[in-house]
Parts: sequence; structure tokens; C-alpha cells
Amino acid sequence: MMSETIQLAHGSGGKLSHDLVQQIMLPAFSNPALNLLHDGAQLPVSGGRIAFSTDSFVVKPRFFPGGDIGKLAVCGTVNDVAMNGAIPLYLSAGFILEEGFPVDELRQIVASMGQAAIEAGVTIVTGDTKVVEKGAVDGIYINTSGLGFIPEGVTISPCRIKPGQDIFINGYIGDHSIAVMGERHGLTLPATVLSDCAPLAGLVKELLTAVPDIALLRDPTRGGVATTLNEIAGQAKVGIRMDETAIPIRPEVQAVCDILGFDPLYLANEGKVIVIAEPCHREKILETMRSHQYGVHARLIGTVVAQPAGQVGLQTAIGGMRLLDMLAGDQLPRIC
Amino acid sequence: MMSETIQLAHGSGGKLSHDLVQQIMLPAFSNPALNLLHDGAQLPVSGGRIAFSTDSFVVKPRFFPGGDIGKLAVCGTVNDVAMNGAIPLYLSAGFILEEGFPVDELRQIVASMGQAAIEAGVTIVTGDTKVVEKGAVDGIYINTSGLGFIPEGVTISPCRIKPGQDIFINGYIGDHSIAVMGERHGLTLPATVLSDCAPLAGLVKELLTAVPDIALLRDPTRGGVATTLNEIAGQAKVGIRMDETAIPIRPEVQAVCDILGFDPLYLANEGKVIVIAEPCHREKILETMRSHQYGVHARLIGTVVAQPAGQVGLQTAIGGMRLLDMLAGDQLPRIC
Repeated sequence: MMSETIQLAHGSGGKLSHDLVQQIMLPAFSNPALNLLHDGAQLPVSGGRIAFSTDSFVVKPRFFPGGDIGKLAVCGTVNDVAMNGAIPLYLSAGFILEEGFPVDELRQIVASMGQAAIEAGVTIVTGDTKVVEKGAVDGIYINTSGLGFIPEGVTISPCRIKPGQDIFINGYIGDHSIAVMGERHGLTLPATVLSDCAPLAGLVKELLTAVPDIALLRDPTRGGVATTLNEIAGQAKVGIRMDETAIPIRPEVQAVCDILGFDPLYLANEGKVIVIAEPCHREKILETMRSHQYGVHARLIGTVVAQPAGQVGLQTAIGGMRLLDMLAGDQLPRIC
Repeated sequence: MMSETIQLAHGSGGKLSHDLVQQIMLPAFSNPALNLLHDGAQLPVSGGRIAFSTDSFVVKPRFFPGGDIGKLAVCGTVNDVAMNGAIPLYLSAGFILEEGFPVDELRQIVASMGQAAIEAGVTIVTGDTKVVEKGAVDGIYINTSGLGFIPEGVTISPCRIKPGQDIFINGYIGDHSIAVMGERHGLTLPATVLSDCAPLAGLVKELLTAVPDIALLRDPTRGGVATTLNEIAGQAKVGIRMDETAIPIRPEVQAVCDILGFDPLYLANEGKVIVIAEPCHREKILETMRSHQYGVHARLIGTVVAQPAGQVGLQTAIGGMRLLDMLAGDQLPRIC
């Protein structure tokens, strides 16, 4: 019998750790590699290239409209792996739990991870749980690391960015940040403001099947679209020109931003991908994205330019040009 | 210029996150895969089997005789990967930092990770940093996940455990727990009581080169030798018979245990490996371990028996038989 709350001994490596794994983790994640409960998973691979990524999740609150820390922990790392042009296959899960954490809530979070993993087509093959004393962590933090295989013929790299290429996004920006912020502060927001948290592995796979030549994929999470494009412009030593009127923003999200003084271009997304490719692929990319459930509102939002290198300019609705820098401070800590 | 303490914006994904990576992480970990700063690393692999493992580190205090949280974070995961019979190659590093954490201390910890990685022969190819508000984490927690390749002809699995096999350990047990506990409580312990924290990749590689037929490797970390052997006995459905007089324990560690009421068989180790193999390999295994710096005090400590299945018995110095169960509570939380 599990107790109702997590005790320090659930992280001891001893009997209670064993019970926690058997009664909470295995029912949610069960698969042959994990079930062996060795010091890690042994996995067959074929030769080629793998993508490897890691992310820790500390989102506050743990449950929010459109998701929870468990779904986020799976989708976040699945998406980072997919951004390498890879098919995500395996995840690890590392939990840091606070003494006294409700076991029912943990069960709910791991169930949510299990569901997200099924949708993303990944298996959680290895894990670890630490328990720290009350006050040494805020409830639960989750790290996931992910592995995927990169199909032959796909090369996703900032080195492939060239002036003249198109920049796309697969839908509305800012939803995740506003949904989490609203929940955190008890605001009553329209029911349509939901986190966009979603696994993008399927969308990326279809995109790369349609257009293996895609130059870059990147998910605009913390720091938002503006910061991500700045990173790309800096790494590729190109300029980026964005079209403000083309950027998909829900009116209700824009309204919250206007009231509270947030800029949606700097808000975190958890189900968005920026795609950069030669303009000859434009129709195929838009068509592929728009026929996928996570790309219905896909748009061409900008162009790679030669100069000024390293800078991102926004052509505003009223015809001016605004320079978009990286996020300087932090609008919303613990957003993921 | 870095500030002297970590600010929330160092985890924003924006400019300060960028500075943190450029000024603190890259100098310590620099390698071609990490330097790309993409959403993960792209790595070449040859076909075969990989090992994948994860561990979070929450040790308290962060610095202790023989190591620190950084060295531990690298060695812990390197060792878990090696316990699959794999040559560890790549690590991820996920940091959760508390607002106000001293940047100098972070620099020291990542330098220690960098050094341990060099000794272990691994590169830190991808990472993530989150910052949470004061009080939401106790200073710094680190997750590492690791990847390694399993040489052909090596199969490490509890399924290969058979009655009659030898059980070895590569040296003194309990040192890590006692060193950390002593530092935590300000005890004055002999200078020889140091954490055994060490990367075992080299020792494991030499062992598997000498004896590819080894049946099982496992590191007795949390829960200690007694708990690890219970897990093995349960998974392999065999009995285990240990010889108390053969188990290497430093007299000074035994003395602290006697005074404070700890049982060294349940204390965590961070540089120990339990090796199980057919008795025909005995001399070669002992010779290989003893000629390695991390196996000088290697000993044959027990035997696999058929009955009672799932149980671990300890033949005591005075001739009795004591049943060793799994660790029930938690003697020393936050030991790793």
C-alpha cells in the first residue's frame, strides 16, 4: 500500500523507492526496456545520426488550461529532439519530489506523461526519483531527456540558412504563457485561452517527408519568437525581416497582452515550430502544415535577409521597422 | 559581465540565459556538438546497442571531502551507463538554480563537472538551465542523462545470473555516505574518510575487455550493497550468500557506523561496482580490478545460490546467518 503523501524514504533507493516505481511509475510508463529496472535502458540502434536533448520543467502552477507539468515535460523534450529533424523515440524521466507531495497528484502527473508519450510515439525507458525535505523544492520538478533518429537526407542546421529563405510558424503564438499566467494569478480568461502544449513529432515528420530539404526547425519556447529568431540570426550571421501583420495571434491573447503590457513576440510557446526553407518549397510546406492538427493556422511570417547580420527587424502594421532584440529580463518566470 | 549572483532572468531563455551559457557553461564543457547551441545535439552513431540512463543530484552539502555535486553528477550517470556494459560517450546536463545562487560557486561546480567528464571520457553535448525564485530549490540541483555504446559480445542482464556465480566488489563500502554525513553535520572525521565518487567507465571497460562474459554489473548507490543485492536476487529469482568477513570496510568508517548506529551495508557508494560472473573468470576479474586505480581493494564477497530465491543472507563473522532485507526507511536523505 502506498502512503497518501511522498516520504523521504521514497527517494532512499530502498523498499519505498521500489514500491513507488512498481505502483506509480510502471503502470503509467510500462514498456520492455523500463520494466527491466536496470541502471538504465539498453536499446537497439541502427547506424546514422541521433539527436539528444534535455530539459527540466518547473512550471508554476503545475496544472493549467491545456496541460500540466507532466504533459509539458514530455512535449518539451520531444519537441527539442524533433527540432533536430529527428524522429523522437526514447525519453528518460527524472523526478525531484518534495516530502509530503500528494501521491494522487503524482499519479495524475505521470498518467499525463504516459498519455503524452503515446501521442508523441515515444517510450519512457529509464528514470530516477529523488525526494528532498519539505521546503527544498516547490512540489515537483521533472527533467526529461530524449533521443531520436535523424532520417538520411535531413540536415537541420543554422549553417544552412541563406538570404531569401522563407520563415514560417505553425500557428498562434503566446497562448502557453498567457494560459499559465492566468492560472497562476487566478485571472478569468476566455475558455479559448489554452496552452498550446503539444508534441510536434508528427508534424515535423510529415514536414520532413514532404520537404527533406528544410534548412532549420526551432521551437520558440522561453524568450518567444523574437528571442529564438535573434539566436538564429546570430548563429547564421544573417538578418531576419518579420511581417507583423502575418504573425498569428489570437485576439483574446493580444487583448490580455495589451492590458498587462506583455509583448506576445516574447512569450513562451510549447507547441510551435519555426520552419526556415528555400522559397521553392513554400506551397508544399504551408499545405503540409495546414493539413496537420497542429498546423491549421500556419503562416509565412518573414524572410531571411543578408543585412543587417545578426539583427531581427519587424515590419510593423503601420509601416515602420522595429528592431527586435533578445528578451532582456524575464516577463514570466517558471513558465515551463 | 556576469552579475555575482544568479537572477531569475538567467533562466528566461533570453539575453541573460545566453550570457550564462556563453560565459559559464561553454568554457567548462566546450565541444563541437554543444557549441552549436541548437535545441539538442546531433551525434553520429554506429549500429548496435546503446545504453541510456538518467539521474538527478540533490546532495547536501554541495561540497564534501572527495567531491562535490558537479563531480557526483557526472560520475553518477557515467557509472549507470557503464553498468549496462557500455562505454559512456555523451552526457546532458540540466541545472535548476535558485535565484541569488553565487555565480562563483556555479563556476566551480561546472569546472568540476568538466574535469570529471574528461576523466570519464565523456562530452557534455546538450544542456538546459532553469532558475526558480528564492526558496523554491535548495541552491542547485543537477540532472545528467548519459548515452553509451555496448560492445558486441557483451550482455549485462539479471537474466544471466545463475547459482554458483561469484560476486565481487571493487573496494571499500560506505565511504561516500560517511564523508557527506560528516560534512553535513560538521563532524571531525579522519582525513582518510573521503567520498569514493569516481567514474568507473575505465575500470568497466578493462573488465569487459578481459572478461566479456560478465553476467551483471551494478553500482550500489542509494540503499547500499544490501539493497542492490536484494534487487538482483529479486529480479534474477536466485538467492545470494554474502561473507561478512570478506566485505571491505575501512576501520574508520566502521567506527563511525558503530558510534552512530549506521550499517555500512546500507550506505550509498558512488565509486563502487558489484560484478557477478562465472567462477572460471575469478582470477582474471580480481587481477584486472586490482591493477586499476579504482579496484585496488577488490574482493570476492559472495556467491549466487539457488535457494532461498529472492533473499540475501549474510554469513556473519561469528558464524551465524543474518537475512539482509532492502533498506526500509532512509538513513541519510540527499546523499546524492
